[in-house]
Amino acid sequence: MTTESLSDIQIAQAAEMKPISDIARNLDLNEDHWDAYGKYKAKLNLSVLDDTSRKDGKLILVTAINPTSAGEGKTTMGVGLSQALNRIGKRTVLALREPSLGPNFGLKGGAAGGGYSQVLPMEDINLHFTGDLHAITTAHNLLATLIDNHIFQGNELNIDSRQIIWKRVLDMSDRALRNITIGLGGRNHGIPREDGFDITAASEIMAILCLAEDLKDLENKLKDMLIAYTFDNQPVYVGDLKAQGAMAIVLKEAIKPNLVQTLENTPAIIHGGPFANIAHGCNSLLATRMALKLGEYAVTEAGFGVDLGAEKFIDIKCRKGELQPSAVVVVATIRALKMHGGVEREHLGEENLAALEAGFANLERHAETLRGFGLPFIVAINRFSLDTQAEVELLSKLCEDRGMPFAEADVWGQGGAGGEDLAHKLVEIVEGNAHDTFKYLYDVEDSVEDKLHRIVTEVYGGLGVKLTAQAQRQLQEMEAHGWDKLPICMAKTPLSLSDDPTQKGRPTNFHVTVREFRPSLGAGFIVALTGNVLTMPGLPKVPAALNMGLDEEGNIYGLF
Amino acid sequence: MTTESLSDIQIAQAAEMKPISDIARNLDLNEDHWDAYGKYKAKLNLSVLDDTSRKDGKLILVTAINPTSAGEGKTTMGVGLSQALNRIGKRTVLALREPSLGPNFGLKGGAAGGGYSQVLPMEDINLHFTGDLHAITTAHNLLATLIDNHIFQGNELNIDSRQIIWKRVLDMSDRALRNITIGLGGRNHGIPREDGFDITAASEIMAILCLAEDLKDLENKLKDMLIAYTFDNQPVYVGDLKAQGAMAIVLKEAIKPNLVQTLENTPAIIHGGPFANIAHGCNSLLATRMALKLGEYAVTEAGFGVDLGAEKFIDIKCRKGELQPSAVVVVATIRALKMHGGVEREHLGEENLAALEAGFANLERHAETLRGFGLPFIVAINRFSLDTQAEVELLSKLCEDRGMPFAEADVWGQGGAGGEDLAHKLVEIVEGNAHDTFKYLYDVEDSVEDKLHRIVTEVYGGLGVKLTAQAQRQLQEMEAHGWDKLPICMAKTPLSLSDDPTQKGRPTNFHVTVREFRPSLGAGFIVALTGNVLTMPGLPKVPAALNMGLDEEGNIYGLF
Repeated sequence: MTTESLSDIQIAQAAEMKPISDIARNLDLNEDHWDAYGKYKAKLNLSVLDDTSRKDGKLILVTAINPTSAGEGKTTMGVGLSQALNRIGKRTVLALREPSLGPNFGLKGGAAGGGYSQVLPMEDINLHFTGDLHAITTAHNLLATLIDNHIFQGNELNIDSRQIIWKRVLDMSDRALRNITIGLGGRNHGIPREDGFDITAASEIMAILCLAEDLKDLENKLKDMLIAYTFDNQPVYVGDLKAQGAMAIVLKEAIKPNLVQTLENTPAIIHGGPFANIAHGCNSLLATRMALKLGEYAVTEAGFGVDLGAEKFIDIKCRKGELQPSAVVVVATIRALKMHGGVEREHLGEENLAALEAGFANLERHAETLRGFGLPFIVAINRFSLDTQAEVELLSKLCEDRGMPFAEADVWGQGGAGGEDLAHKLVEIVEGNAHDTFKYLYDVEDSVEDKLHRIVTEVYGGLGVKLTAQAQRQLQEMEAHGWDKLPICMAKTPLSLSDDPTQKGRPTNFHVTVREFRPSLGAGFIVALTGNVLTMPGLPKVPAALNMGLDEEGNIYGLF
Repeated sequence: MTTESLSDIQIAQAAEMKPISDIARNLDLNEDHWDAYGKYKAKLNLSVLDDTSRKDGKLILVTAINPTSAGEGKTTMGVGLSQALNRIGKRTVLALREPSLGPNFGLKGGAAGGGYSQVLPMEDINLHFTGDLHAITTAHNLLATLIDNHIFQGNELNIDSRQIIWKRVLDMSDRALRNITIGLGGRNHGIPREDGFDITAASEIMAILCLAEDLKDLENKLKDMLIAYTFDNQPVYVGDLKAQGAMAIVLKEAIKPNLVQTLENTPAIIHGGPFANIAHGCNSLLATRMALKLGEYAVTEAGFGVDLGAEKFIDIKCRKGELQPSAVVVVATIRALKMHGGVEREHLGEENLAALEAGFANLERHAETLRGFGLPFIVAINRFSLDTQAEVELLSKLCEDRGMPFAEADVWGQGGAGGEDLAHKLVEIVEGNAHDTFKYLYDVEDSVEDKLHRIVTEVYGGLGVKLTAQAQRQLQEMEAHGWDKLPICMAKTPLSLSDDPTQKGRPTNFHVTVREFRPSLGAGFIVALTGNVLTMPGLPKVPAALNMGLDEEGNIYGLF
């Protein structure tokens, strides 16, 4: 790894972007296919997908082992790999999630890759971008407003204001809005009730946008969302309120994927960013489809590690979108493997071969999972400057011994050039693999308990699942309403294969406890919560926002 | 007036728009001057104002008599007049406010002109447009979040949570959020306190955006906003919290004016839309400056009638921006004049010459006001199909007798062609007027009570001003802090010259009571509230949103 003293934003600002019209032209898109949003961003019209003369490319999923709290550099690896594939002559398009705006003001650092593997223009992507999240915020709050207005105006649907599931959202880390009371101030100002705000990425509308086929399908999915129960405990859907049409209109531009570029001018389609816990954590289906349509290779990612990201990518997104990955890249760092081998955070910089070997078990478990899906994979060893030669050699040997293809990569420090070896080996795997062995983990028609059991035993390596009394009651209710024949969306800590974040490596002899179910009937999955999931973050003691500003020439400083 | 059966949206959808690149080229702008947002919208860079070789055009303000609750068609007249001026060979650019998104879901009808005098693309302009309002929402709520986080993290500034002036905002008509309590749920979720949401257009940030010279000036104005008081009753400003830098970054694109076009391809710069009561109600200063830079004529408008709109346009916006109107167009309808003459709403369609003559007093009062400002004006008689010939003749005679220039116009039914007579007469007035007699109503260094007295007596025609005990206390406080040397922003009913909406025509022998003062220290004016101003609207019993949707082909219906 090269030792660079430039920050992400310095590298980004020094980059020479091509006009987005050049990027689009290189993809053989004509002017009806896209609309410029400034000189370096565009919205792609869904007509891009209508060209039947183009054959779909190969889908590559980038995922990871269970990460440290700093993450394994999955997005950076995805960006770098796409650059590397283009360098070795494979026309490649990247598909990524779009970041939330709110968290930028808390901790320094954006969500658009890093070092020499970034997507640009990174300030725009991390701020308002093309307004997709604002549109989701608006559609979400429009529905909330219509619910409260319905009750205020006579409550024809008999909605029980104590049983409204639909909260409000803002794209802001605003803990003070987690639990609120609204409708105060007297008879002209609504009906008092308890409520709360989530961050926009946690909205079911975000999940729906990322699974919709087109605007009409989006409208239909919005219609199916569960929003409340009546005083007789009957479910109330968006369709009962007739709100789906206006909401879909609000989202008419947001449904279009966004085209930008990487530091090396690789086309990047960035669209949708649902939470990786209470939702499936992947960019939009439309973005992935477009990347497949426009590239020989389409590189995409899924949030968290294989146990959460890849499993949900396959069992939710691939199933709904009839996608099939050609190969999976599992990002691993020596740091994180040592952590899984029992090393404390402050000692991760020190060579520790025994810990590395012990922690390797975590990677092995994920390899077994991917073999279970019938998917070829390669381990991408994401190099850090403190990795020792002995450590790298040991990890290579461990992979070799277990028959796991691997490659070192330093795309952070070297950009695409640092990922060429990975790209070559990946292409070899993809093009050498003639057998279609891909399969989902479970059948959606299985019972919820069976589906959960397979996830826990075959992906997490646990003994089975336990339901709390609340979850059992909710399961009975879901079965009674016929909501149980949907894929499961696990909400679990990403830091462990188990539901206990302190259990590193490859835990055994554990059960996973499902505390609560939340049916996302519009998105079309059942969320199974195994712990507390915070859907509205807060700001730290010294928020990054306080160090941002404009210098005397009007140049921005302090953002990332 | 032609009788057309087409709705506004049908006319808009049938129109042939030019690519925004053509509109920009016709204005002699080069590619560094603008960024496309789709094919028919652009953001104009502030560098447009740097071209010192161009001479500023003539500024035309469109205002009105005191309106009926349906409005006098001021925006439509402004659009039509700009089209008419171009038809008669005067290169004209329009500058207008941008609409809120939220209210579209309540009552049917957008805010982009009407009939054959509309700005396009009207769906986009009425929905997210280029995201300016979303950026203001974000900047506003970022500040709110930082305030609550500051208190939660130890409250170094000693902010009294009962005395926080800064609320939150959404661009939504959501009455249930007017009065809320936040920070509930225990010690990890903030500090409980009372709060509330306003609609985004009511944010002081919107007023600031519309008065800022550039992004650095915007940051400085944000810094000066008053947000709370300490437990020792000392004022707390945004600068104390160091939030202005991050807020300005959030607004870095929103500060750029937006270029679109009218139905007849007249360039329209649409930017900023502050409330016309608790703020000054005009499009941004930057938009007006650009219209002046790019056109021989720049046509703009100000919210409500002469008493509120023109007075604040002159005493707040022109003063801050060193603008000087060349002439004023006062829109009047025969319907509204009859209403001022005492006719009830349901009889406004019937001929009533006596009522018309009595109601004419309202127009006369406004003419006196404009003469007081030293500004030439013309009355634009906005024709409706039910106006009788006898009524039109009487109104013409009344204008003639009082030496008031006038012209009939039907820009709604005929577009620019229906405003040519008005345009010719206006040009004659502007080009024939050699004397500079323009003056403000008051000196900002006058006392608040003196400034108020001049507004009430010389603009409203009242006897004077009264302050409630609360307002007196607040005035003393403002004087103690040195906040009193600012222009006054009157918040008064637009429906009457007095502060009583039922007093039509030209009321006499009245006092105006100021109930409360609110110092907008960032925007740089003192709001004087004379009645209850609702800063968060609500939805009606059957919101327009419930009739919106997508047909089977995916086409939008029900929006406007």
